Amino acid sequence: MTAAATVPRTRFELGPDEVPSHWYNVLADLPFAVPNERRARGAVAHGRKVVPQLPLSMYRTGVSLEPRVEIPEPVRDEYRRWRPTPLYRAWYLERLLDTPARLYYKYEGTSPAGSHKLNTAIAQAYYYRRAGVEHLATGTGAGQWGTALAMACQSFGLRCTAYMVRCSHAQKPYRHLLMTAHGAEVVPSPSPRTEAGRAALAADPDTDGSLAIANAEAIEQAITTDDCRFSVGSGENHVLLHQTIIGEEALKQLELAGDYPDVVIGAVGAGSNFAGLAFPFYREKVRRELATRLVAVEPAACPKLTRGVYAWDYSDFSGITPMAKSYTLGHRFVSAGIHAGGLRYHAAAPIVGAMYHHGAIEAVAYPQRAVFEAGLQFLRSEKIVPAPESAHAIRCAVDEALLAREAGTPKVILFNLSGHGLLDMAAYEQYLAGRLADCTATDEQVRRSLAELPVLEHG
Amino acid sequence: MTAAATVPRTRFELGPDEVPSHWYNVLADLPFAVPNERRARGAVAHGRKVVPQLPLSMYRTGVSLEPRVEIPEPVRDEYRRWRPTPLYRAWYLERLLDTPARLYYKYEGTSPAGSHKLNTAIAQAYYYRRAGVEHLATGTGAGQWGTALAMACQSFGLRCTAYMVRCSHAQKPYRHLLMTAHGAEVVPSPSPRTEAGRAALAADPDTDGSLAIANAEAIEQAITTDDCRFSVGSGENHVLLHQTIIGEEALKQLELAGDYPDVVIGAVGAGSNFAGLAFPFYREKVRRELATRLVAVEPAACPKLTRGVYAWDYSDFSGITPMAKSYTLGHRFVSAGIHAGGLRYHAAAPIVGAMYHHGAIEAVAYPQRAVFEAGLQFLRSEKIVPAPESAHAIRCAVDEALLAREAGTPKVILFNLSGHGLLDMAAYEQYLAGRLADCTATDEQVRRSLAELPVLEHG
Repeated sequence: MTAAATVPRTRFELGPDEVPSHWYNVLADLPFAVPNERRARGAVAHGRKVVPQLPLSMYRTGVSLEPRVEIPEPVRDEYRRWRPTPLYRAWYLERLLDTPARLYYKYEGTSPAGSHKLNTAIAQAYYYRRAGVEHLATGTGAGQWGTALAMACQSFGLRCTAYMVRCSHAQKPYRHLLMTAHGAEVVPSPSPRTEAGRAALAADPDTDGSLAIANAEAIEQAITTDDCRFSVGSGENHVLLHQTIIGEEALKQLELAGDYPDVVIGAVGAGSNFAGLAFPFYREKVRRELATRLVAVEPAACPKLTRGVYAWDYSDFSGITPMAKSYTLGHRFVSAGIHAGGLRYHAAAPIVGAMYHHGAIEAVAYPQRAVFEAGLQFLRSEKIVPAPESAHAIRCAVDEALLAREAGTPKVILFNLSGHGLLDMAAYEQYLAGRLADCTATDEQVRRSLAELPVLEHG
Repeated sequence: MTAAATVPRTRFELGPDEVPSHWYNVLADLPFAVPNERRARGAVAHGRKVVPQLPLSMYRTGVSLEPRVEIPEPVRDEYRRWRPTPLYRAWYLERLLDTPARLYYKYEGTSPAGSHKLNTAIAQAYYYRRAGVEHLATGTGAGQWGTALAMACQSFGLRCTAYMVRCSHAQKPYRHLLMTAHGAEVVPSPSPRTEAGRAALAADPDTDGSLAIANAEAIEQAITTDDCRFSVGSGENHVLLHQTIIGEEALKQLELAGDYPDVVIGAVGAGSNFAGLAFPFYREKVRRELATRLVAVEPAACPKLTRGVYAWDYSDFSGITPMAKSYTLGHRFVSAGIHAGGLRYHAAAPIVGAMYHHGAIEAVAYPQRAVFEAGLQFLRSEKIVPAPESAHAIRCAVDEALLAREAGTPKVILFNLSGHGLLDMAAYEQYLAGRLADCTATDEQVRRSLAELPVLEHG
């Protein structure tokens, strides 16, 4: 029975009028350069000239060295519909783990889209619409990104086409129904309607699909359709920028809690939810000379940071995109169909890769079953179903809390609960039924994929 | 493109320290008596003496005439994990409808269980646990109640068995997976493991099931199992009492908004979410002599208020429960398998029935397709997927807003968005695909069912 007197405050909220006015640009504080992407000038694909996909106003925010980027007012208006998101102290999980550590999580699942992805979707839809674009095409893994973009397009009057990775499309039917309900066109990928999709199907008719293939299809649609652009939900500098609102809010909320983290943790697909939470803490670490650890968590099925190489690579399966330098498993790497579809991307965001390369952040990889074990502990104590992606961060936070218990020292741990997993219940069922495999990437799989990296420079 | 300057404040939140300290007991302000239930003394069922199911401390709060009932501190501690829930102005829906009306909704879907049901589940689990009970059995329709009770039992260390109406069990697989993940035992009803279930299966092996049958099974389990009690999620006085925290919060939040409703709307299964929002506004109406209209919305498939009779009836299919006087379609009424499983109950709560009988509230019934049409309008403008139950309230609110448009007069409309429908996406898909039937109850169906009412007094 809960002993009333001992329950501390567990929820720290800010009002809609406290939505931060600026995003934070980490490039301003990095003591090293992040290589810009290499864009082939005058490139032609699918019989058309490849035009820059980003509106100039948004592109500039991603290469600027100014530390603060003002959030346009129509974007803040949309943010105020659900932001600031709550910060919770995971007191019930702490008790379950019997740890002296204090755990906090920023909960992005209160967004109407159910994840942090709406932060950048809203911003992108705004910038694209302002630039006169009428239609956005995208690739989506688990569908969190596709849902967010569908909603954002509806807010700003754009059409939306989402190519959804085939294994996630099959695993998460409610997810694509949700996108459809929000007016988007959803296409399982690889599809027969693009050259890229047909090529992937020819290579392996039974493929699970990958985000790189889905992106290749969306890019092809953007190139071959008037007024249509390709939009991505992670990886690029401007996307990471838009997510920093998470960390900015968390800093204010931890002040309310009277605490400050020793460790900041986020799951990494390409890195936007990790970056969104961690970058503002990186700024504080640098400016206030703190010892804060920033830990990126990836799935053992797709271990780009811990087992990939730091090299130039494409972000799509077809190699149409500009090349970026980061940690990668190769753009032809197809991760096993783990339930954390949002983490199946082959490479880290260039900024995240550079920070890892220069030792500014740590990385750790977990197999799927250990992740769901922690996810279920969280669900049963904190009563929120974590998205499988977010459960990776929980696994790491739990391990840090258990280390604190062994050491007998308090430690303050902050992690990003980037989304809820209500549409991922099938994954929990499989875990509970003992039908979930770990899906750790094999050495052979990684070696074969890295052999297909474009030949430029490695390391 | 959103015009920034014109977006008003749309979200009104209170902090965890502003969770109300008391529930509101409407019995204190009613100018008529609500008949108490008739409990057969010394009744025997399933070979055992039928014991009172309610802990005395909780029972007393349901028959008291005191206007305020203090919320026990451990219950408030649990409430603070998600309460107060937000009040939204539905400004985006207003624009879509082009109405001069101002629409507000109280959003109970931010509860970890996804609906208002957790308000009473927490309270009941607390009272039962304090009375030494170790196991709760219940019937659940759409599964919102079962999910809430599973979570509440976990909070207070009780076991939980939920008999889930068969058609909902099939329609909403994620819902029962969620209950299972929270440690509950879930049994599709009618089941072969109880006499009541076997009788229902013998009568119609293909039955959709009903909440009355599921409740009969749960009651049978409670009677035949030591330390097990039967808990219900709606209908009884104490349940309605626990839900009044919704309206108490809404009153405070509307003050922040500087507005007051002309109409208060809620969907009615038995009546707990409607009562939870509307009763505190009834108090204000009586005490401040206001003209506030209180509107209960029911499905045309299960129109207990608009087409039932005011009579004594059982709350379960087997007729084991005490009889209550209210509007009913007869305890053997089996509603068509509409997606709003939570509204398929055959009778109204006694207090709601008495208030309707005495003209203190209004009622209206809607067929399923009109409900989903409004639900989709809401989803696309407000970006929240409404539970099919809550979409009934939306339909009514939209109609009120359209009347205001015709009349050219502003009107303030408040409704209860009692839960989210993320686990009900299949219903929206069927609506979008044109595969949803209206399922209005036939005259013959109602007549046949009313003929089986216990013979006592009608009207």
